[in-house]
Amino acid sequence: LTTPRAESDHVEILSGIANGVTLGSPIAMMVRNHDAKSADYDDIQAAFRPSHADFTTLAKYGVREAAGGARSSARETIGRVAAGALAQSLCEQLLPGVCVVAWVQRVMDIAASVDVNTVTVDQVDAYPVRCPDAVAGQAMTQRILEVKALGDTVGGTIGFVVRGAPAGLGEPVFDKFEASLAGALLSLPASKSFEIGSGLAGTYMKGSEHNDAFFADALGAIRTKTNRSGGVQGGITNGMPITGVVGFKPVSTVFVEQDTVTASGDNVRFAPAKGRHDPCVLPRAVPMVEAMVWLVLADHTLRQRALTGSCGPAPLQTRPKP
Amino acid sequence: LTTPRAESDHVEILSGIANGVTLGSPIAMMVRNHDAKSADYDDIQAAFRPSHADFTTLAKYGVREAAGGARSSARETIGRVAAGALAQSLCEQLLPGVCVVAWVQRVMDIAASVDVNTVTVDQVDAYPVRCPDAVAGQAMTQRILEVKALGDTVGGTIGFVVRGAPAGLGEPVFDKFEASLAGALLSLPASKSFEIGSGLAGTYMKGSEHNDAFFADALGAIRTKTNRSGGVQGGITNGMPITGVVGFKPVSTVFVEQDTVTASGDNVRFAPAKGRHDPCVLPRAVPMVEAMVWLVLADHTLRQRALTGSCGPAPLQTRPKP
Amino acid sequence: LTTPRAESDHVEILSGIANGVTLGSPIAMMVRNHDAKSADYDDIQAAFRPSHADFTTLAKYGVREAAGGARSSARETIGRVAAGALAQSLCEQLLPGVCVVAWVQRVMDIAASVDVNTVTVDQVDAYPVRCPDAVAGQAMTQRILEVKALGDTVGGTIGFVVRGAPAGLGEPVFDKFEASLAGALLSLPASKSFEIGSGLAGTYMKGSEHNDAFFADALGAIRTKTNRSGGVQGGITNGMPITGVVGFKPVSTVFVEQDTVTASGDNVRFAPAKGRHDPCVLPRAVPMVEAMVWLVLADHTLRQRALTGSCGPAPLQTRPKP
Amino acid sequence: LTTPRAESDHVEILSGIANGVTLGSPIAMMVRNHDAKSADYDDIQAAFRPSHADFTTLAKYGVREAAGGARSSARETIGRVAAGALAQSLCEQLLPGVCVVAWVQRVMDIAASVDVNTVTVDQVDAYPVRCPDAVAGQAMTQRILEVKALGDTVGGTIGFVVRGAPAGLGEPVFDKFEASLAGALLSLPASKSFEIGSGLAGTYMKGSEHNDAFFADALGAIRTKTNRSGGVQGGITNGMPITGVVGFKPVSTVFVEQDTVTASGDNVRFAPAKGRHDPCVLPRAVPMVEAMVWLVLADHTLRQRALTGSCGPAPLQTRPKP
Repeated sequence: LTTPRAESDHVEILSGIANGVTLGSPIAMMVRNHDAKSADYDDIQAAFRPSHADFTTLAKYGVREAAGGARSSARETIGRVAAGALAQSLCEQLLPGVCVVAWVQRVMDIAASVDVNTVTVDQVDAYPVRCPDAVAGQAMTQRILEVKALGDTVGGTIGFVVRGAPAGLGEPVFDKFEASLAGALLSLPASKSFEIGSGLAGTYMKGSEHNDAFFADALGAIRTKTNRSGGVQGGITNGMPITGVVGFKPVSTVFVEQDTVTASGDNVRFAPAKGRHDPCVLPRAVPMVEAMVWLVLADHTLRQRALTGSCGPAPLQTRPKP
Repeated sequence: LTTPRAESDHVEILSGIANGVTLGSPIAMMVRNHDAKSADYDDIQAAFRPSHADFTTLAKYGVREAAGGARSSARETIGRVAAGALAQSLCEQLLPGVCVVAWVQRVMDIAASVDVNTVTVDQVDAYPVRCPDAVAGQAMTQRILEVKALGDTVGGTIGFVVRGAPAGLGEPVFDKFEASLAGALLSLPASKSFEIGSGLAGTYMKGSEHNDAFFADALGAIRTKTNRSGGVQGGITNGMPITGVVGFKPVSTVFVEQDTVTASGDNVRFAPAKGRHDPCVLPRAVPMVEAMVWLVLADHTLRQRALTGSCGPAPLQTRPKP
Repeated sequence: LTTPRAESDHVEILSGIANGVTLGSPIAMMVRNHDAKSADYDDIQAAFRPSHADFTTLAKYGVREAAGGARSSARETIGRVAAGALAQSLCEQLLPGVCVVAWVQRVMDIAASVDVNTVTVDQVDAYPVRCPDAVAGQAMTQRILEVKALGDTVGGTIGFVVRGAPAGLGEPVFDKFEASLAGALLSLPASKSFEIGSGLAGTYMKGSEHNDAFFADALGAIRTKTNRSGGVQGGITNGMPITGVVGFKPVSTVFVEQDTVTASGDNVRFAPAKGRHDPCVLPRAVPMVEAMVWLVLADHTLRQRALTGSCGPAPLQTRPKP
Repeated sequence: LTTPRAESDHVEILSGIANGVTLGSPIAMMVRNHDAKSADYDDIQAAFRPSHADFTTLAKYGVREAAGGARSSARETIGRVAAGALAQSLCEQLLPGVCVVAWVQRVMDIAASVDVNTVTVDQVDAYPVRCPDAVAGQAMTQRILEVKALGDTVGGTIGFVVRGAPAGLGEPVFDKFEASLAGALLSLPASKSFEIGSGLAGTYMKGSEHNDAFFADALGAIRTKTNRSGGVQGGITNGMPITGVVGFKPVSTVFVEQDTVTASGDNVRFAPAKGRHDPCVLPRAVPMVEAMVWLVLADHTLRQRALTGSCGPAPLQTRPKP
């Protein structure tokens, strides 16, 4: 389904860990890119690939390294995933029972049915297409292969959920929890949209239908009957599952001839002669989404700990009397 | 359409400006909230209003000021709009010809038809509902009034466009231009979704259909035939209009009785007895969206100026030879 | 000793506090400057006052507000002192028993003898010159009055101590505790030097004399016999008193005619005709130094709490075995 | 004079540069520490070395890596020097003619006589002791060798100057140019004091003596007759040479037996059996000071360019009329 390359990536931990224990110092990790073959990219020197960053990189910096797509290669996301693994480890220690799960929710118009309250990473990783709905996943796989055979590409959406996060994370104004998620997830290559909770669908509802009624459960814990808020109200988590969806455009590298322009301004026809590219970024994007969500969760957990001394809800203060 | 309150807001400039000229020092502005009547909010002391921030604020801080919704009142957005006006003034000076326009794109299922290449602020502000499509706007108005009569509320979407921004703004990895927009816009109260360019619709397309072909126009300027990228490629602006859509949920304050819980954990029925609230936040959200977009634009313009000394594309460097 | 002006400063708390309790939202405070008489500053429009910021402000911003010295007026320090009072309140809650004391250590060549282990704010504030050594303080006072009679000014040093801070605050590389103090204190108007612990005097010693020997006291607490480190080792506090000294130049406004240049480049003679100025900034600088130290302490305390969950030393981890 | 170790340090550039040209992406550099011999540090596992960071590191993190002094080893400064070289390259391009020179100003009580207006890096680097005053340098060398023979160590001061920096750099309140320098330089290992311009000596003077008179030179440029301000007034550079002095304590590792405590709280006698240490850090600290000054200069230059579009003084604006 994805690029047929055997990238023998190897992460080397340069600092911050000794004998399996973090030392408090920054943890530097390095993955060398053994697989960048400059020759593969010779043809992209001449023409700006449509919907790639070739043109904008040159506009920004006045200089551009073509090999491997350089700075805008999606290979940079390996750093996010590596850092996300550390954030996960930190969160699992600070927030016992917390988990983050992402999955392929939709490929083109083929949508999965996934229960955000129960889906697990194992269920997702059981399939190469990373969709835990087996039936939808099979249709997605077939669609991807069909489109690939045409030299074309597809997009879709990734769903995600955080279960077990406490109430109280996130800031009330600029650094709302969902704002941090939106900023983090829209920084992923090829991402086009972000939704929290009911998302776009929620904007078609009336307030009386959309509101999440609170109730005290048998143990006295305050929860909501529905979760259209997606676990965040007023920018702050409410203890319910944090849910969202990220959209990804179809991959820009297609083996179909297209119009474009060279750096010297000539209008030309362009098709990549060779190179390794995915027909669909979504299965690969699942761990990227999880990594960014772990990072956001870790950040807000530490901010809350600085604020209150614990990672969970603040102890109740005497309420100010008028 | 919006709250029938005559908020006699008055902004006082506390610092940074003398005789109409900025001095380089921080510009502090203050708007006193003359209209907060604590009495209006007495009933919300007892119960957590559904889908409001009452519960999460208490969870975060352990204390909560009820008057006026306090920190989570949408009245905080006046600060964004005031700051956005300054950002606009700065951008207009640094990027001659630049403009930002936002409008009500959809109310529930009633969508407008708007040309992002020509729509102006004047066209938007000509209607109280802030939709420049007169026919759709009339239907929106009627829908809002109907729902208001039921004590209920609606949501929808705001579209926005930046025209005249240069190529080269935005960072290639974390602070992508669209990531900054997403983070800024999801920090607005009641926002639920963000789309850049083709957004969610684009995720249903094939790569060959979705790609924006480059061409050199008659003057030699490099542009794209379509603009599904929404003016941003690889996180960096390409000089085409920057377009996006933000979704807003229906307002949470409805005059319909709902289930909720008190701070002491009792399950109760709740309906606000009084208070001033909008049936639809969208017309009011238009200037908020514009303000946040101006702020993001100003930030990235100054970052680019620090990088290259100009606010536009970097001068071409000798390309490194292998 | 200081300016004979009765500045009826009044601080108004704009946000963040209700009924005597902080709410978690930003605490904005405002002091209006009722006492700026533009007329007093008419003569400084024409000429750059020697060793003032008139020239550099114009160089930086291309524009300058003359009234009251504007941005570079030492009146800005009222904001530091107000914020410092909040930081003090926070630290006293998080670090029970902590205290910060600053005092006038030297005026020109008249130095005080002060015991950093016992000096209190009350002892300092008992004298207008804010020197707890009564004999030295009297000589300082006399010197200041003599110099004032000549229309001239003096400088000197402020000593400070933090007692009761835990071990573990500060970062090991760039944000060393003493680096934060140095940056904070050199941001005070007229400050010229910063020393931590033994400071300049320590640079004349041999290592064997300068080192602070550790010992376990009767209760098993680890302390040092001397404290030339000034309570900080490797950028991190060691639980001993944090001590330092800040130097302040003589006030630049002297009632003695001096050479200078006008904005139009004419060489002229200049003496301020009128205006209210101090012969010695030191007594007024004592609360400024305390405020900046409280702010640094609060910052590092919250950082440590984010890191470890407590404001004091981290719990011992199993030491990594090779 | 310094450690007799042949550290075969090799810097590898990991990213951001291709074919000798920077690409706009972050420049990562790596120096592997081939020379850390854990065995050398076995004895420091047992006891906290006096005036080292062993105790405070454990207090901060609850865990400590002994090998090579770990995080608090002065070997970290190689990263500062490497980054400083890039900052220098940037500044030399943005501020033609600018230079930074640092030198050993004093070893214990042996002080050099150095003209800040003419001293060059070549003059400094001509001597292993890095003091451009040959006579003083010879006395310093002898003193260091004498003290080394005793197994002891010495401290002293480093002077520095920036020539050719424009007026207008630095911020008027918290990020004053000298505050940035103080924070940067106090972050260097073993630093104990910072002085800008006249420094401590200036605090003994009267205002009328200390002030720097402005004058317009033959070309109409505004300069000062003296430079007690050290090139900074009100936190902003005035175009004169930026001068300062940093104090360094005597090296903590002495081959003399001292009292200390073990991690388990036992009072013991301690002397390092082996290990490679300097009798005097000053000659090695010269490039560190230069590096930190270049970094501060680069930061403020880019901030000024973001503010005004140029790296020098802002163009004159119409002055606001009352």
